[in-house]
Amino acid sequence: MAMTELSTPKTTSPFLHSSSRLSLSSKLHLSNQFRHLLLPPLHTTSNSKISCSVSQNNQAPVAVQDNGSVKTKKECYGVFCLTYDLKAEEETKSWKKMINIAVSGAAGMISNHLLFKLASGSVFGPDQPIALKLLGSERSIQALEGVAMELEDSLFPLLREVDIGTDPYEVFQDVEWALLIGAKPRGPGMERAALLDINGQIFAEQGKALNAVASPNVKVLVVGNPCNTNALICLKNAPNIPAKNFHALTRLDENRAKCQLALKAGVFYDKVSNMTIWGNHSTTQRGGLLIQKWGRSSAASTAVSIVDAIKSLVTPTPEGDWFSTGVYTNGNPYGIAEDLVFSMPCRSTGDGDYELVKDVEFDDYLRNRISKSEAELLAEKKCVAHLTGDGIAFCDLGPVDTMLPGEV
Amino acid sequence: MAMTELSTPKTTSPFLHSSSRLSLSSKLHLSNQFRHLLLPPLHTTSNSKISCSVSQNNQAPVAVQDNGSVKTKKECYGVFCLTYDLKAEEETKSWKKMINIAVSGAAGMISNHLLFKLASGSVFGPDQPIALKLLGSERSIQALEGVAMELEDSLFPLLREVDIGTDPYEVFQDVEWALLIGAKPRGPGMERAALLDINGQIFAEQGKALNAVASPNVKVLVVGNPCNTNALICLKNAPNIPAKNFHALTRLDENRAKCQLALKAGVFYDKVSNMTIWGNHSTTQRGGLLIQKWGRSSAASTAVSIVDAIKSLVTPTPEGDWFSTGVYTNGNPYGIAEDLVFSMPCRSTGDGDYELVKDVEFDDYLRNRISKSEAELLAEKKCVAHLTGDGIAFCDLGPVDTMLPGEV
Repeated sequence: MAMTELSTPKTTSPFLHSSSRLSLSSKLHLSNQFRHLLLPPLHTTSNSKISCSVSQNNQAPVAVQDNGSVKTKKECYGVFCLTYDLKAEEETKSWKKMINIAVSGAAGMISNHLLFKLASGSVFGPDQPIALKLLGSERSIQALEGVAMELEDSLFPLLREVDIGTDPYEVFQDVEWALLIGAKPRGPGMERAALLDINGQIFAEQGKALNAVASPNVKVLVVGNPCNTNALICLKNAPNIPAKNFHALTRLDENRAKCQLALKAGVFYDKVSNMTIWGNHSTTQRGGLLIQKWGRSSAASTAVSIVDAIKSLVTPTPEGDWFSTGVYTNGNPYGIAEDLVFSMPCRSTGDGDYELVKDVEFDDYLRNRISKSEAELLAEKKCVAHLTGDGIAFCDLGPVDTMLPGEV
Repeated sequence: MAMTELSTPKTTSPFLHSSSRLSLSSKLHLSNQFRHLLLPPLHTTSNSKISCSVSQNNQAPVAVQDNGSVKTKKECYGVFCLTYDLKAEEETKSWKKMINIAVSGAAGMISNHLLFKLASGSVFGPDQPIALKLLGSERSIQALEGVAMELEDSLFPLLREVDIGTDPYEVFQDVEWALLIGAKPRGPGMERAALLDINGQIFAEQGKALNAVASPNVKVLVVGNPCNTNALICLKNAPNIPAKNFHALTRLDENRAKCQLALKAGVFYDKVSNMTIWGNHSTTQRGGLLIQKWGRSSAASTAVSIVDAIKSLVTPTPEGDWFSTGVYTNGNPYGIAEDLVFSMPCRSTGDGDYELVKDVEFDDYLRNRISKSEAELLAEKKCVAHLTGDGIAFCDLGPVDTMLPGEV
């Protein structure tokens, strides 16, 4: 195994002890002034070993030979461009093999919460090194660099790569998870049909890109709204990825519902279990109230619910409980129309996959509500037929407007 | 021990299975429409136990008898106003006794990251139940409610109370930690002396309030800038709290410096240790670059550094390493002026307290840089003499401007 000089950092001299010597090597890092950054001096005492050291013959980071092919990291960011022997660390620290996680809308507020949770190890565990692949728009590239800088500055030990880019065919390369958060928000006066089309095109393109370059068993979680229909579009454009791997986020609805039910029941929310969100994610109700109070949409709790949704797939579901997630209807036992993405109760063994909970029984009231949600999703599906390969779109969404301007 | 009916939630009937029955009891919760929230039906099957249940004779939450006095929670929020027997849970789950954590500037962006980290258990550990006391301005009270709603919706098991308020004498009651983040940002054209005075008055008042109502051994971390001088003002107004308990956050500088040094050295940042930030927190340099890239200040990484600063006090410092924090100079071995808040290398046994690392030796270069930082802090101290009980203020801050408009 090739050990680069970078994996043996405890070299001897000279100690960096003046801020003026810090002229940074990264092309993306501009700051070379550290007025208040005063590093430890040369002298070491018996009690305190000072290990901030720089090798005299320090080389620029080099590409690592990986399976015979030179790995180039064109889009890597700052300190994450450094080459080091992660395999050795994986062995030394009993770490798992690094996973690649793509996040779209990476410069947005939900991602600004989510990325730091992913990087901290609180989602995939303290033994799972992580590479983050950040997808943004041309317009957001500076902000993406800002996010990458903040991730660097957070010194998360498990975060080993941060790449930024605007082309899903590059960013999605080999990703094992794709968290698709970015979507155009609905502008004032915009028709729902227009929004469906604009966002649908984004998710059609991302589906194609995932199909072409992602890990064949990539798990895809669609957050950008309308998330059920966006997820359907995405999976239809990724025929080589199992349709079962695509999810639409309804966990925020589940969490909110659990909290409200706890309030109603006069118990703490940890006493509420077996909550099912059937059908589609709703952007109205509590989300709207939050925007009104808060002046912005609920980024922090949305990020928490994304974490919950991922954890539900990578940890075994507690005995007797289930979780809700929007999944592809293909042989569902509830008589819900096939070929939709519809939220249903699921369980997981923790391997990233899930099974439907098949024995929840409906009464007429629930049946009726589910049918309404089903009808909404069927109507949305007809609007985006041109994006799913189902022919010519016909859009009649009816008078019910479930989507709020400003809600992501 | 009194068990309220709320601690026995697994009552029998009727099951809530229609969204129309959800009319919420909390006065702060307005939404009563749950179009897409379709709860599990009455019927339970052999495989799936449905435990969303509401007792028929459900009572409104009542005050718990606590040490003979009725505990009223005037400012509590939503589901956190529920009364339940936390002591029983502490025993059942081997939880520690709940701690009260105050956060000022709670509606701001740094807090929006920090509060969720505190509530998730990632700072104080998975066995530490937490009460969050959110201090904001009158102007921000709606946003505080929004934050509380998002905390509710996140269903953090360890988060047991959220109180919101605008009066530090109420919010700081019995707090064991006070994270003072709120400060007025510097407006365009504002003189540094004016900013020092405006923020100084805030921290003088908060110091008085902590002195009057907080836990006698409260730990105080000042983040609002200029944090060193604000911390000095705060501790001077809290004579009954040990001066050693006050900290000014220089951990963000430490983290940024470690990252930059790693880049320079060509090693991953986890190889850099024993970094000392001497003197005052600097709001320029990388922070300024981030604002430029990102369009806002670095809330996420600041929150991470606050977490790091707290963890450094509540977990033992790794052998041979240290961390930087701005502390009260009282008998320091480095000849730095006494009666300042100055960042120095420290170690902790993990009990919330710390000791200075006393044997770092300076060369002339470092001595000179430290003297400059010392002179800046002495000048700031003279500007706020009217707030520290040191007589009449005299303000001559010199030409060096370390504070950037827009940086928090």
